[in-house]
Amino acid sequence: MLDILLLGCAGKMGSAVAQLAREEDARFCIRAGVDCRHDEYTGLFPVFSKIEEINIPVDVVVDFSVPEILTDTIAWCSESGTPYVVGTTGISSAQCKVLESASRQIPIFQSSNMSLGIYVLNELALYAQKLLGEEFDIEIIEKHHSRKVDAPSGTALSIARSLREADRALFFTYGRNGKKPRAKDEIGIHAVRGGTIAGEHDLLFAGADETLTLSHAATSRMVFARGALRAAEWLVRQPAGKYTMKDLIGA
Amino acid sequence: MLDILLLGCAGKMGSAVAQLAREEDARFCIRAGVDCRHDEYTGLFPVFSKIEEINIPVDVVVDFSVPEILTDTIAWCSESGTPYVVGTTGISSAQCKVLESASRQIPIFQSSNMSLGIYVLNELALYAQKLLGEEFDIEIIEKHHSRKVDAPSGTALSIARSLREADRALFFTYGRNGKKPRAKDEIGIHAVRGGTIAGEHDLLFAGADETLTLSHAATSRMVFARGALRAAEWLVRQPAGKYTMKDLIGA
Amino acid sequence: MLDILLLGCAGKMGSAVAQLAREEDARFCIRAGVDCRHDEYTGLFPVFSKIEEINIPVDVVVDFSVPEILTDTIAWCSESGTPYVVGTTGISSAQCKVLESASRQIPIFQSSNMSLGIYVLNELALYAQKLLGEEFDIEIIEKHHSRKVDAPSGTALSIARSLREADRALFFTYGRNGKKPRAKDEIGIHAVRGGTIAGEHDLLFAGADETLTLSHAATSRMVFARGALRAAEWLVRQPAGKYTMKDLIGA
Amino acid sequence: MLDILLLGCAGKMGSAVAQLAREEDARFCIRAGVDCRHDEYTGLFPVFSKIEEINIPVDVVVDFSVPEILTDTIAWCSESGTPYVVGTTGISSAQCKVLESASRQIPIFQSSNMSLGIYVLNELALYAQKLLGEEFDIEIIEKHHSRKVDAPSGTALSIARSLREADRALFFTYGRNGKKPRAKDEIGIHAVRGGTIAGEHDLLFAGADETLTLSHAATSRMVFARGALRAAEWLVRQPAGKYTMKDLIGA
Repeated sequence: MLDILLLGCAGKMGSAVAQLAREEDARFCIRAGVDCRHDEYTGLFPVFSKIEEINIPVDVVVDFSVPEILTDTIAWCSESGTPYVVGTTGISSAQCKVLESASRQIPIFQSSNMSLGIYVLNELALYAQKLLGEEFDIEIIEKHHSRKVDAPSGTALSIARSLREADRALFFTYGRNGKKPRAKDEIGIHAVRGGTIAGEHDLLFAGADETLTLSHAATSRMVFARGALRAAEWLVRQPAGKYTMKDLIGA
Repeated sequence: MLDILLLGCAGKMGSAVAQLAREEDARFCIRAGVDCRHDEYTGLFPVFSKIEEINIPVDVVVDFSVPEILTDTIAWCSESGTPYVVGTTGISSAQCKVLESASRQIPIFQSSNMSLGIYVLNELALYAQKLLGEEFDIEIIEKHHSRKVDAPSGTALSIARSLREADRALFFTYGRNGKKPRAKDEIGIHAVRGGTIAGEHDLLFAGADETLTLSHAATSRMVFARGALRAAEWLVRQPAGKYTMKDLIGA
Repeated sequence: MLDILLLGCAGKMGSAVAQLAREEDARFCIRAGVDCRHDEYTGLFPVFSKIEEINIPVDVVVDFSVPEILTDTIAWCSESGTPYVVGTTGISSAQCKVLESASRQIPIFQSSNMSLGIYVLNELALYAQKLLGEEFDIEIIEKHHSRKVDAPSGTALSIARSLREADRALFFTYGRNGKKPRAKDEIGIHAVRGGTIAGEHDLLFAGADETLTLSHAATSRMVFARGALRAAEWLVRQPAGKYTMKDLIGA
Repeated sequence: MLDILLLGCAGKMGSAVAQLAREEDARFCIRAGVDCRHDEYTGLFPVFSKIEEINIPVDVVVDFSVPEILTDTIAWCSESGTPYVVGTTGISSAQCKVLESASRQIPIFQSSNMSLGIYVLNELALYAQKLLGEEFDIEIIEKHHSRKVDAPSGTALSIARSLREADRALFFTYGRNGKKPRAKDEIGIHAVRGGTIAGEHDLLFAGADETLTLSHAATSRMVFARGALRAAEWLVRQPAGKYTMKDLIGA
């Protein structure tokens, strides 16, 4: 049984983690939550507005909150020696360095997308890029619900950056309008928004008379919650260090 | 047997029409072509650089050239009383008026997309919009080969405008980048470019927990050539007037 | 506020209806449930094993149970004059006649698929069939979760039958294996099974060098629950009669 | 400049190879063709009815004919020391052994699908299978034109067999009809037929709340012709041996 402190518990992802933990209550127990919206929250565990208020020991911190509280959270985890799963997106590069440095004392798992499928999508994309070579044009189409604020998705950007690491000439275009043919080294990234789509990512490799497409569709946030809890279970058995999906899957 | 004068015969669409006419030589005969690139052209029919040079009678003019020669072509057709199939894209609204006015004397067929499937796609889109109502968000994704100069495609724009005619509040967004949620009345139009894709159009209607998608894929220019020749066969039996795919299909 | 008697409340669809009713508790109240698995059920309303045990008045019966109890349910509704929403699948033609006959006394709404999108998919399919004519081959691909017992889905069959009503020559093929070209009047129906897919239906209209595809994807059972509750709200305001999605949407 | 003897030159694939060779006449020259339908053939090179009639030297034999003439062809190539590209499908295992044995004297390239994209699809499928593990269900959907005689496609079967080599418990199901849930180790293979579809293959990996799909679409036979000519160019530089796409791409 894993005792969990859940940050951002009143948000959409936090609620999904809480729901899944309840369904799998032989393996997981949310001991407490932290959320600035703690007044509205009517869950099965106590909710606080700041992590400093927590003084019960837990096995792991799972964080789907906002970057603003990351520094306080790192301090709390380091001091208490608690493993830390970071699912928060929009983390600055300065904060990344603080995470790196804290990982010398505690195990930290970080991924902007906790889904196994998305991890595999990224791996397949790199392999396809290598095998197909430069004669195939790459385009990325992602689809999310109409209320998603940022475009393109963090996952689309992260995959695009992986591809660019393998081929430094690549650059990104966000939508097209006007008279201009496609540049050879362009990756078009297209952010489709509508309805309640949980998250779809299509990667096109378009060549002469043939197209290869790698697609991932998540049908509910549960897939990310499941990934976060699996990462938490795994992380508590690791020594101090910074871990990603690659370490988890390779395991 | 239909005697045809083919404008833009050295271009990609013109070549497709010429090839199809040859394959169906019991029904169609290209008597002559017009193309400014007439020197390079080694077809089975004589090619001229200007329509004014043509003095043989034909049953119909099929035009896949450029808007610049449209006015001369209208004059030639009107004077000779020749039915005129216009597949040229990028025609200005002033030129549209000239076409309208010429159609009082000769039959004119005009469509920016001669495919039966695209016509049906547009009809289905309007019907879906009517049945699904305002609770579904509409997005359009079109995919074409990497050398296509204009974005989005004329077909995507034409469908988007049809939808806007039925709901005047709709407006268009060409790609997304940055922090901004989707507006309720927004139609996102996404132009994907790569490889040799002949033409794909996806229309998404995304609602709560369900998405309806209407997709059309053309696998070769032949489908447009076939549509143009079918329109030509039909047009020569019509009285003077301005016709579109709607008239042809309804027939 | 609509008082509902929910049949099959311990099943997957019944649970979805119960959950949605709870989320929209200003509009809906499940007064009681019926399910033979009533011992396991720990909901917010009393659950009985047979409809005969229910003696409280309700505004409407919503049924996602099994065909075996349909006759008893019709009797109960007719006697108490309660409108009846039938979402049960696998109803025999004999039972259909009993429903018809009961609908002379009470309003009855029946649909094997309560989703607005699926209704629209069916309407669009008929329209596409009419516009495209016989030169396009029709194939249906449906995808559902790995535990679905019946193949193909009731929805796929229902759409196929609609198409056959418009063209009596059509016949159905369930998968292909061996050496045999496609017959002109064949509709291939393909049942894909895997993971937790909530329900996808693709209708292909494949012609010469072009393909039109109509696709519907449901990402959760909630879409069917929402449809059933909307139908229930609408049905209680109707006179006696047999109603389907067509009546509801046309309304 | 590569001198080619083209077997099956009057067939669809043979014609595509001939057309592509003509377009790239600086690199390729079809010196002669063999086809039992040689009377109908009006190409740019002499056509014979049997390979035994050919007595001009060529650099390479490219074969898109029928398995029946394979033994004669092997004999001719071995005797003349001519490299041999085999694109013929439906070869028996006995014939495969003869090919193996002949490859001790001459270089032989064999692939049932000459497209780079299909090769990569197969590689990605094996990698996805390895990374995703047993919790994902695999299904294959292939789409081809309505005149294709065999179902499922050789490519779909070949990919399914690759996956089964990595997991011997897997078995194949060709369509579904009736009441029976999916077995854990089942791969459903679905053969969709319609219109003029050149060839599409979708591989689904369906897990809990997420699906990964790998898709390949060929839009014209040209992609296979291009692959065969590229293989021919490469093969003439190799020593005796049996080669496949893996050797060509790895090169």
